Amino acid sequence: MTSWTPQQVAAHNTASCWIIIHGQVYDVTKFLPEHPGGPQAILNYAGKDATEPFDTFHAPDALSHLPSEAHLGSIPIIAEAKSKTKDQARVEEAHKHKPPLYRVLNLADMEVIARKVLSHKAWAYYSSAADDEITHAENIRAFTRFFFLPRVMRPVSYCDPSTTILGYSSALPIFVSGAALAKLGHPLGEINITRGIYTSPSKQIIQMVSSNASLSFNEIAKAARQGQALFFQLYKNRDDMVAERRVRAVEEAGYKAIFLTVDAIVAGSRERDIRNPWILEDEERGGSPVYSEEMPSLDGANHLGTAGALTANDDRDMSWERTIPWLRSITKLPIAIKGIQCVEDAVLAAEAGVDAILLSNHGGRQLEYSLPPIEVLYRLRKQRPDVFSKLEVYIDGGIYRGTDVLKAVCLGARAVGLGRPFLYAQGAYGEAGVTKIIQILEREIVAGMRLLGAPTIKDLRPELVERIDWQPLVSKL
Amino acid sequence: MTSWTPQQVAAHNTASCWIIIHGQVYDVTKFLPEHPGGPQAILNYAGKDATEPFDTFHAPDALSHLPSEAHLGSIPIIAEAKSKTKDQARVEEAHKHKPPLYRVLNLADMEVIARKVLSHKAWAYYSSAADDEITHAENIRAFTRFFFLPRVMRPVSYCDPSTTILGYSSALPIFVSGAALAKLGHPLGEINITRGIYTSPSKQIIQMVSSNASLSFNEIAKAARQGQALFFQLYKNRDDMVAERRVRAVEEAGYKAIFLTVDAIVAGSRERDIRNPWILEDEERGGSPVYSEEMPSLDGANHLGTAGALTANDDRDMSWERTIPWLRSITKLPIAIKGIQCVEDAVLAAEAGVDAILLSNHGGRQLEYSLPPIEVLYRLRKQRPDVFSKLEVYIDGGIYRGTDVLKAVCLGARAVGLGRPFLYAQGAYGEAGVTKIIQILEREIVAGMRLLGAPTIKDLRPELVERIDWQPLVSKL
Amino acid sequence: MTSWTPQQVAAHNTASCWIIIHGQVYDVTKFLPEHPGGPQAILNYAGKDATEPFDTFHAPDALSHLPSEAHLGSIPIIAEAKSKTKDQARVEEAHKHKPPLYRVLNLADMEVIARKVLSHKAWAYYSSAADDEITHAENIRAFTRFFFLPRVMRPVSYCDPSTTILGYSSALPIFVSGAALAKLGHPLGEINITRGIYTSPSKQIIQMVSSNASLSFNEIAKAARQGQALFFQLYKNRDDMVAERRVRAVEEAGYKAIFLTVDAIVAGSRERDIRNPWILEDEERGGSPVYSEEMPSLDGANHLGTAGALTANDDRDMSWERTIPWLRSITKLPIAIKGIQCVEDAVLAAEAGVDAILLSNHGGRQLEYSLPPIEVLYRLRKQRPDVFSKLEVYIDGGIYRGTDVLKAVCLGARAVGLGRPFLYAQGAYGEAGVTKIIQILEREIVAGMRLLGAPTIKDLRPELVERIDWQPLVSKL
Amino acid sequence: MTSWTPQQVAAHNTASCWIIIHGQVYDVTKFLPEHPGGPQAILNYAGKDATEPFDTFHAPDALSHLPSEAHLGSIPIIAEAKSKTKDQARVEEAHKHKPPLYRVLNLADMEVIARKVLSHKAWAYYSSAADDEITHAENIRAFTRFFFLPRVMRPVSYCDPSTTILGYSSALPIFVSGAALAKLGHPLGEINITRGIYTSPSKQIIQMVSSNASLSFNEIAKAARQGQALFFQLYKNRDDMVAERRVRAVEEAGYKAIFLTVDAIVAGSRERDIRNPWILEDEERGGSPVYSEEMPSLDGANHLGTAGALTANDDRDMSWERTIPWLRSITKLPIAIKGIQCVEDAVLAAEAGVDAILLSNHGGRQLEYSLPPIEVLYRLRKQRPDVFSKLEVYIDGGIYRGTDVLKAVCLGARAVGLGRPFLYAQGAYGEAGVTKIIQILEREIVAGMRLLGAPTIKDLRPELVERIDWQPLVSKL
Repeated sequence: MTSWTPQQVAAHNTASCWIIIHGQVYDVTKFLPEHPGGPQAILNYAGKDATEPFDTFHAPDALSHLPSEAHLGSIPIIAEAKSKTKDQARVEEAHKHKPPLYRVLNLADMEVIARKVLSHKAWAYYSSAADDEITHAENIRAFTRFFFLPRVMRPVSYCDPSTTILGYSSALPIFVSGAALAKLGHPLGEINITRGIYTSPSKQIIQMVSSNASLSFNEIAKAARQGQALFFQLYKNRDDMVAERRVRAVEEAGYKAIFLTVDAIVAGSRERDIRNPWILEDEERGGSPVYSEEMPSLDGANHLGTAGALTANDDRDMSWERTIPWLRSITKLPIAIKGIQCVEDAVLAAEAGVDAILLSNHGGRQLEYSLPPIEVLYRLRKQRPDVFSKLEVYIDGGIYRGTDVLKAVCLGARAVGLGRPFLYAQGAYGEAGVTKIIQILEREIVAGMRLLGAPTIKDLRPELVERIDWQPLVSKL
Repeated sequence: MTSWTPQQVAAHNTASCWIIIHGQVYDVTKFLPEHPGGPQAILNYAGKDATEPFDTFHAPDALSHLPSEAHLGSIPIIAEAKSKTKDQARVEEAHKHKPPLYRVLNLADMEVIARKVLSHKAWAYYSSAADDEITHAENIRAFTRFFFLPRVMRPVSYCDPSTTILGYSSALPIFVSGAALAKLGHPLGEINITRGIYTSPSKQIIQMVSSNASLSFNEIAKAARQGQALFFQLYKNRDDMVAERRVRAVEEAGYKAIFLTVDAIVAGSRERDIRNPWILEDEERGGSPVYSEEMPSLDGANHLGTAGALTANDDRDMSWERTIPWLRSITKLPIAIKGIQCVEDAVLAAEAGVDAILLSNHGGRQLEYSLPPIEVLYRLRKQRPDVFSKLEVYIDGGIYRGTDVLKAVCLGARAVGLGRPFLYAQGAYGEAGVTKIIQILEREIVAGMRLLGAPTIKDLRPELVERIDWQPLVSKL
Repeated sequence: MTSWTPQQVAAHNTASCWIIIHGQVYDVTKFLPEHPGGPQAILNYAGKDATEPFDTFHAPDALSHLPSEAHLGSIPIIAEAKSKTKDQARVEEAHKHKPPLYRVLNLADMEVIARKVLSHKAWAYYSSAADDEITHAENIRAFTRFFFLPRVMRPVSYCDPSTTILGYSSALPIFVSGAALAKLGHPLGEINITRGIYTSPSKQIIQMVSSNASLSFNEIAKAARQGQALFFQLYKNRDDMVAERRVRAVEEAGYKAIFLTVDAIVAGSRERDIRNPWILEDEERGGSPVYSEEMPSLDGANHLGTAGALTANDDRDMSWERTIPWLRSITKLPIAIKGIQCVEDAVLAAEAGVDAILLSNHGGRQLEYSLPPIEVLYRLRKQRPDVFSKLEVYIDGGIYRGTDVLKAVCLGARAVGLGRPFLYAQGAYGEAGVTKIIQILEREIVAGMRLLGAPTIKDLRPELVERIDWQPLVSKL
Repeated sequence: MTSWTPQQVAAHNTASCWIIIHGQVYDVTKFLPEHPGGPQAILNYAGKDATEPFDTFHAPDALSHLPSEAHLGSIPIIAEAKSKTKDQARVEEAHKHKPPLYRVLNLADMEVIARKVLSHKAWAYYSSAADDEITHAENIRAFTRFFFLPRVMRPVSYCDPSTTILGYSSALPIFVSGAALAKLGHPLGEINITRGIYTSPSKQIIQMVSSNASLSFNEIAKAARQGQALFFQLYKNRDDMVAERRVRAVEEAGYKAIFLTVDAIVAGSRERDIRNPWILEDEERGGSPVYSEEMPSLDGANHLGTAGALTANDDRDMSWERTIPWLRSITKLPIAIKGIQCVEDAVLAAEAGVDAILLSNHGGRQLEYSLPPIEVLYRLRKQRPDVFSKLEVYIDGGIYRGTDVLKAVCLGARAVGLGRPFLYAQGAYGEAGVTKIIQILEREIVAGMRLLGAPTIKDLRPELVERIDWQPLVSKL
């Protein structure tokens, strides 16, 4: 195995593209078009050490796809005495003042803590949403317009919040909605979630694993316990063959359902995420800098942030007629559509015979001014109650409280997905944080069911909820 | 009588449980399951001096229920030179700057003063509400959506705001709604209220005494004047026999009605109350502490705050079919249901033949997003006006002004309950503060009736109130 | 004429009541029951010098009603070297920084300046409103829910905003609504208004003079120019004979109409006004004082502020059946009812045959939560458009802009009253300030009519206004 | 050519009016009545050097209209060592800290930067709106009440946002709405816009050039590229002959359409603009000055700010019957009406046979409380959908995002005009800023169309938009 100098590697930054990962040198020129995050994401590191972004975005086994001839040899690692950035120093200090876990009373507490202890990059990626983040805010705010009409004098000492989702038992009517890049927040990444949500087959919450997870679906499947159910969130590749290989591999790895993502065929413009590197750069320089004329314009190359790279190869021409039959033909797994945003498409999904739909606007990260999912659910309940008997309906987006979950279940949702809360929790406290989220929600859901006079999931009926005609003030965060 | 050393008592903290109260040693091991606040509340003090919490939560005669053999003897009281906590010092200073009572113009003034002069613990317990306290805020805000259509050119120099409640005369269409733990705010506790609201049989306001009062119902009944009417707020014990004993004792003590509480079968999550000890702890340590890994987790044991302990033995399986006939069978007192939260349950209550209902969401302290009581009243008036002729209807929650009372009475409420205002008033000024609340409300109610052109209670008709379709800005506090 | 010592006068403070005004001694014992502000207002100065409050509340000729034997003689004026209060010093400094009048662009500007240059007492009396001042705020805010549907391509180079009110010409569809105690803001008092609003008979605005003006109706009538029309705002005395004398005197003095006030039979609780002396007292002492136990309680005596005294003798038993025929029988002047607050009473007024009604909630100073007048006008237009052909309809309350005036006129108001703006303007700039208010409104009204495509008052039709279903944000002040 | 002294020129400030421009002396006495900005605007500089305002408001060729005898000769230019004003110093410093253009992610970013780098005068003129600027704020806020019902599973890899406007191709469904006085922000003025919006005939955005542009329509037409389409925004002179000359000259210069402005026959009261000189004056003096009694009152002369002068000679008596036939008779160009504000006038415009209407309230700069254009569009779509087939409908006002554009197009707008964003962009970054605005909107519009499942303009249908019944919180600026 040849040994190289940094200068030699640095020369390969144009026609050919070499990069360094963990002291090994790779020629990735031919791989560029296949990179799930698009070629530009790699070209930014052409001729340089790409270990850090590689570790952040990929599983350790991600290099196994490369042909052996791409591995060119090793390179001496030069220990750079890297000084801490201001953001790193801030994060380190913040962890010291992080409250003990028993003081975390609710999901908003967890978010406040995460905001303090996460790196700016992680916080920007997790929390950001499209454009002015109005949709994200309205997702949350929409729940405040649904009030309860609780029933009293009903026996509730026995109370059971468990249900099934696509036939798999779930201790609560919730699941982990696909959320990417957990390693930005914690070195163990998505595995913190996989481990934190499971106690036994009858005491588990189901995790939907994203195509964009920072660990491979195989690694996550291996981390799962015996009897633990996982779903897979598919971003369909534009090449049907590539997509089929992925689906078959996922099924083989033991995943129990495919959630086909349809609301993210191009990336939303998450501006806070895009601004992240500039803010860090200015922070390092100190204060409000004077910008020189020569400052290189990154315009165009960079305007989609972390999210942009992830959708580069996705299929933008899916259709009810073509895509659902194709997917049925290659897998026996139940199929759910993630990203339904109006009543009409819910009806089309039922007609297409899928097993479930997830009413979602991608946590407000895609199209600004897409209706809040709880509002879509409310319209579906009023306009087409028949749909609920044809497939399972879920929602995600904007959930902070057990009462939010209960409102959705009353209106007909079989289960409610949460994404960011689990990313925040694992980022702040690892696996224990994830478990804490479940404990909080269990307490809130059970107490809520009792106070509603509804001791089982089937007692949660539309009559218990009223959409009010004023807008409460919100003080959640 | 044997004399013990602290070490000896301290040894009895596991299989057997001894505690110290006012220099006396008690073996409460057998009493643990009967403790109204649940065993854990005592176990926290196993082997220790429990005088302070005993005095806060219980009447002096509370120990008379113990068998004599439980009284083991005395223990030398060691005078600890306890230094004042920061919170105690703050309270002491705040009392010096408290304005004279004649400057208290309204109930919000009183609350602002109470916030300053009460201990953090008292303020947290009194003021806190469930979850994000949205329901509590909306209870208040809901009144701002009801406007008046005042009538002019009607003789009003004669104006009489008096009424009757369950047959007992009341100088104003208001009463004291059950509110617990008055001793947290003032050493005399609930007796401040009992005394402050009564002048003569025809000039009195009725107090509903809580099962969770910090004085026993007997002590409060003894403090009442000849001709003064008291109602009892019952938290029904899960053991019917225990509950029956309580009801019979209450009736014997001279109480005039039973208000069966149905909206608090489990405790709401009053997070500000739960956080109270942590905030005091951090305050003593100074600023934002660094938390050690070893910090003991109190999780689970403590997550229900002061409220949690109080409901530990309550009956969670009450029903219209079983509970109302049982209660009728053991008492001749009129029965009111406290905690009706929707039109349907108001109708069921009427069908069950109870004498009155109190539309209440427990001051926003139980199920977050329960509809504001004035909104429930409005729906009941529109949808089922017949109910008002079958039983008396009251509301409580969110009352700050005479105009709030008048709106409710216009819509059909026979009377309106207030809880927190009396706790704040007695905490800040004792009995005189309570009387001040009555004076303020009397002035506001009489002036309001005159300006409405409605000189008597029966002139307060639904036509005088309009629910508007916009949301006024609120600046009460 | 006897000369007295202060000690001698001071002795007469109980069974008999003597007071000093401008160095003269009066025995007012017999006059106490007749005092329009009630006896207590005088008794506060029993045995003392009452010159300052006398000058503030009364016209110089007010003493002419006293019998000559009440004038006991003179008293040497002892020059007290009174040091300026902090509030007086503040006012003096503020006047130096007051902007020149040409910089006052709108009525909110004028209010901001007045707030700075008026004494705290004047500001508190003028600006305060009932209770939490929600009604006052909503009066203003209500206008923001009415938007225009302007018409284009209509000739508007000729534009005439003039109209008539009860037959008297008015240069604009506005008038000065009754507003009391102008001398609190400026030594010349109401005369600033009388002079500032008149140029010629065809170029005038009409002033409605309050019973509570700080100058007598005679003084104001004398200050008026030839051809200037004045209306009189009557607070009817409970004694019909006293009231009749007043009406006849007013008619004789040349007033053109009687506006019978019906929304203020008892005084609203204007808490900011009531607090005024306490704030000044604390300000003098500096900061947050420690209050002694002995501080005398003024409770009861003082709880109605400046407004309370003014309504002490008013008739609280007026009725449509009795009061209107009585008033018709004693005067030939047109009768308007000031203070109609709902559609039903507007209809009753039309049936009672009065000439006009002023939809008003007294600037939010009386019953909190009385509907904003523009909302009452809107309901009247929709529910009973016939009323507009039977009598003239005006509104007042919450007017800041020419567009506010135009909205009301479009909906059927013949004219719109303004009170506080004139008090602020004369307080800050005297007569010139009053004229400025007229100039601003004329510019805004004419420009608005042109941009609406409505060149004359009769072109201002309901079709030009739409009540919207959302609530705009307001940034007026 | 005679040489003059400043004193000689200064003498000609009354009966005759001489002014200095670029060192030349002109007698403009006879020209005064013809000045488009009215005589007063010139008289303010009678006998003085008017070079600065001339350069700001006029094109260099503006003097060519003067008869040669008006040019009296030259005058020695005395170099004044003018020190920078505080505002000039602020602007200079702000430009150093202006972020590089690639960091400008959206139109609000651009506005924030412009606010910092523009002179106070430019910012005040560009950003100000009528009265309290409620209409301007509501224009923006109105878009937040329209949410999307996006459709999924539709092929969108091909996506074409291009359209035609009055037959001319436009790369996006947007155009530059008439916006005046670009030179206030940048020395090159409107030409920055003309150049920045054009790449090729099939890749262009159309500019509507204002009568009040700071460059003449001829200069702007010359700056345009071959194949670039320009529209002309006509403020019709009250003299038909003057107006006709202007229309014929515009047609000859190659303009493709006439946008007749009908919502600005008198100037709105843009108070922030009017206050601008006073704020600068106080700033120079430092802090809150003491105003002397002698301070000259500019009242009346100046109360319309920059905008007032511009409309002095406009026709205030236009009508459907007279003006449209007249305009048709003098030009072959398509006619659009700019400033329709209600459904009824849209219908009248269709009946009058014009080619297009621009629903606009002049960016909130004219009549306060004119309905937001997107609301007028919504009502037009619901009440009179037939109008859309008779003429082209545009809107302008309040656009910040591609989603705003898409909402309007879904509801039937053929294109959407933007004014202020281009003024801000050229003021901050010149031509490159203008191009950046186009790039941002293109990215946002294309991504939005894909996420809506609507790959072409004709797929943008009303069914994709729902007007919601609550008011989202806005955080755009």
